Amino acid sequence: MKINYYMPAQIVAGDNCVRDNAALMRALGDKAFIITGSGSAKKNGSLDDSLAALSANKQSCTLFDKALPNPSIEDAYGAAEELKRSGCDFVLAIGGGSSIDLGKAAAVLACNDLTPETLFSTPLKKVLPIAAVPTTAGTGSEATNYSILTNTVTESKSSITSPLIIPRLGFLDARYTYNLGYNTTVNTALDALSHSVESLLSIKSSPFTEGLALSGIRIFRECLPALQNGRSAIIEPAVREKLLLAAAIGGMVIANTGTIIVHGMGYSLTYFKHIDHGRANGLLLGSYLDFVSKKDPAKIEPILKAMGAQSVGDFEAALNSLLGVREKLSEDEIKDFAVRAGRVLHLKVTAVPPGIPDMEAIYRRAVGGA
Amino acid sequence: MKINYYMPAQIVAGDNCVRDNAALMRALGDKAFIITGSGSAKKNGSLDDSLAALSANKQSCTLFDKALPNPSIEDAYGAAEELKRSGCDFVLAIGGGSSIDLGKAAAVLACNDLTPETLFSTPLKKVLPIAAVPTTAGTGSEATNYSILTNTVTESKSSITSPLIIPRLGFLDARYTYNLGYNTTVNTALDALSHSVESLLSIKSSPFTEGLALSGIRIFRECLPALQNGRSAIIEPAVREKLLLAAAIGGMVIANTGTIIVHGMGYSLTYFKHIDHGRANGLLLGSYLDFVSKKDPAKIEPILKAMGAQSVGDFEAALNSLLGVREKLSEDEIKDFAVRAGRVLHLKVTAVPPGIPDMEAIYRRAVGGA
Repeated sequence: MKINYYMPAQIVAGDNCVRDNAALMRALGDKAFIITGSGSAKKNGSLDDSLAALSANKQSCTLFDKALPNPSIEDAYGAAEELKRSGCDFVLAIGGGSSIDLGKAAAVLACNDLTPETLFSTPLKKVLPIAAVPTTAGTGSEATNYSILTNTVTESKSSITSPLIIPRLGFLDARYTYNLGYNTTVNTALDALSHSVESLLSIKSSPFTEGLALSGIRIFRECLPALQNGRSAIIEPAVREKLLLAAAIGGMVIANTGTIIVHGMGYSLTYFKHIDHGRANGLLLGSYLDFVSKKDPAKIEPILKAMGAQSVGDFEAALNSLLGVREKLSEDEIKDFAVRAGRVLHLKVTAVPPGIPDMEAIYRRAVGGA
Repeated sequence: MKINYYMPAQIVAGDNCVRDNAALMRALGDKAFIITGSGSAKKNGSLDDSLAALSANKQSCTLFDKALPNPSIEDAYGAAEELKRSGCDFVLAIGGGSSIDLGKAAAVLACNDLTPETLFSTPLKKVLPIAAVPTTAGTGSEATNYSILTNTVTESKSSITSPLIIPRLGFLDARYTYNLGYNTTVNTALDALSHSVESLLSIKSSPFTEGLALSGIRIFRECLPALQNGRSAIIEPAVREKLLLAAAIGGMVIANTGTIIVHGMGYSLTYFKHIDHGRANGLLLGSYLDFVSKKDPAKIEPILKAMGAQSVGDFEAALNSLLGVREKLSEDEIKDFAVRAGRVLHLKVTAVPPGIPDMEAIYRRAVGGA
C-alpha cells in the first residue's frame, strides 16, 4: 500500500482562538494581506479579532475586502495585483471557502509568474504563507491544498493544487458562524459531510484519512437533529463548534485523498443550474452511495455505521430531511452533465467509478424528472 | 472546547518508499548525520536504502552507528558532539524509538546550548531538520514531538518536548520489520496500541486525534490473530505493514494528547524491573481500563468497540493472549511505584486520574502477587 499523508496545517479551535493564539501568526511575516468579503467578517467579529491579533504581534496589514462567492480566475489575478502592490509578505484569509480559496490563489500568483493556462498545471516552489479564519463550516479550505476557481473556459471549476497552499494556520472560532442563515448552515454542512464520505471512497484513502473521515461523519451525525429542526436560531454554540470541526476534518482528508466523482458531478449543477456547491453534493451523495452499494457493499458499511444508518435508504432519508424539495433536471441536461462528468479528473481517484450510463442513472435518481 | 492540533510530519509508506521518495529529503539539507544502532539497520536494508536515497540527492553523510536501547542524557550529549564535529545540517535517524529519540536529542543539542538541567524545560527556537526511518512498529517516534531519554537523576524517563522535533519526514517500509523477533514485535505493537488507547483517555483528546486513535486500535485488532499465533515467522508482510501504520498513528495522536498515567506507571516497571517499555504498558493497560470502566464507563465504550470487545474482560483477554506469564511485584514495590507514579506529569492530562490507592490497586491487579 503506497501512502503519502501530509497535513501540516496547525488547527487551533475554541472561542477567542484568534486572539488567544495570535503569537502563532508571528512566524508568518511582517505584513498581512487580509482577504475577505465585503460584509460578514466585519459583522461576525472575525475581522476585529484578526486585526487585534496582528496588532498584538506588531504586524501591519492591508485590507482587501472584495472577495466574492465562487471566485473566478480573473478575480484571483486581480487580488494578486493588489497583494503585490501592497508589499505584504503573508496572506490572512477570512471568510467562507471563497475568500480562503481566493487568498490562496493570490498567495500563489504574488510570487509565481503564471498565465491562466499554466496556473493549474505548474508545480509550485514558493507561495506566500497563508493563515485562514473560516467563517462558514463547509469547504475545509483552511486545511486543504486546493484553491478552487471558476473557470469560464472549461465551464466548470479548476483547482490549483499544491502542498504549499495548505494554510500554516487555521483558526476555528465557531462564534463567527452563529448568525449564518439556515440554508448556508445546511449546505456547508452537507459539503463537509460529502468531503469525509468521498474521502473514504477514494483510491487514496488510508488508515490516516479513514480514521479522520469517520470522525467527521460521526460529528455530522451528532449535529443532525439540530440541523433537522429547520431553524438557524436554535443551532446551539456546541453544535456550531462541531460543524466547524467536521468541516476542518473534511478538508484534512480531501487534502490527502481528493474528492471523487460526487464533486465531479456536482460542478455542473453549480455551474449551469446555480445550485449551491454543498447542496449539489448533498443532492448526489445518496444516489452515488446507492450505486456503490450495488457494486461493492463492503465499501459503504463503515460510512453507514458512522452515520448510524442501517442502509443507504436510512442515509438518504437523513439527507432528505435537510434537502427539502429537490431541483429537477431534464433528460437532455442529465445526458449532457453525465458526459461532462466523464471528463473530470475526480474519476481517477474514485474507487468505484461509474460509467456514463451509471452517472446518468445517478443524476436521474437524484435530480431527474423535470 | 480548546483544541490545538498539529502534525506536520509527512508520512510516506510502502515497500521501497525511502528510495522512491528520496527527493522529499532534498529540502532537509546538504549533509545528513545518520543515527542508528550498530546492527539491524545494516541487515534489514534500511541503511542501504537511506544511503542510496542520499546519494541520488547528491547529499553527503556521516554515519553514527552507536545508538543503544533506552538512550540516556549522556548518550544524547555524546551524539550531539559528534554531530557538531561532522558539520551535518540535518539528522536522518534509522531504527527503533531509541535511535530516533537519540537523533532528535542530538538535533536539539547541536544548535541549542543547554545543560541537562535546562534540556527538558527550555522552549526551543531552532532544531536541525529530522527525517526518520523506523525499523520497529512501536513508539511512533517518527511522528512525535518527544525525545524520551533515560534520566538517572529522576530514576525515570524524561522528555524533550517541542513541535520542532517532529520529524519532517517519516518513511514507513515494513520490509525492515520482517525479521523482528516475536517478543519485539508483540511489545512494540502493545506500545502502539497503548498510545492510541491512552490518547482517547487524555483530556487533550479531540475529534482529530479520536478518529486517528480509533483507526489505530482497529488496525491492531486486525493484526491480533497473527500476533496471537506466537511465532514471528508467520507474520505476513500485510500484517507487518499494518503494525507500522498503527505505530505511526499512535505517534501522531500522542504528539497532540500526550500519553496518560498508563505510561507514567509503566516507567517504573522499565526503570527498576527492566520490563520492556511496550510490555509494561500492555501489562497495565487492561487494569487501568478496568479502573476507568468503574468511574466513567462511557469513556471506554468506543475503545472496546474499535477493539471488537464486549467488555474490559474481553479486551484484557486479547492482551493476555500476547503477554503470557505476567511479572510479579512485591507489595513494597507496588507501594513505592504508586507513589512515584503520583508525581508524573502524565497525571495532568489523564481524563480519569487515579489516586495513589487506585494506582496501587491497578499495579496489584496487573502485576501483583510476588
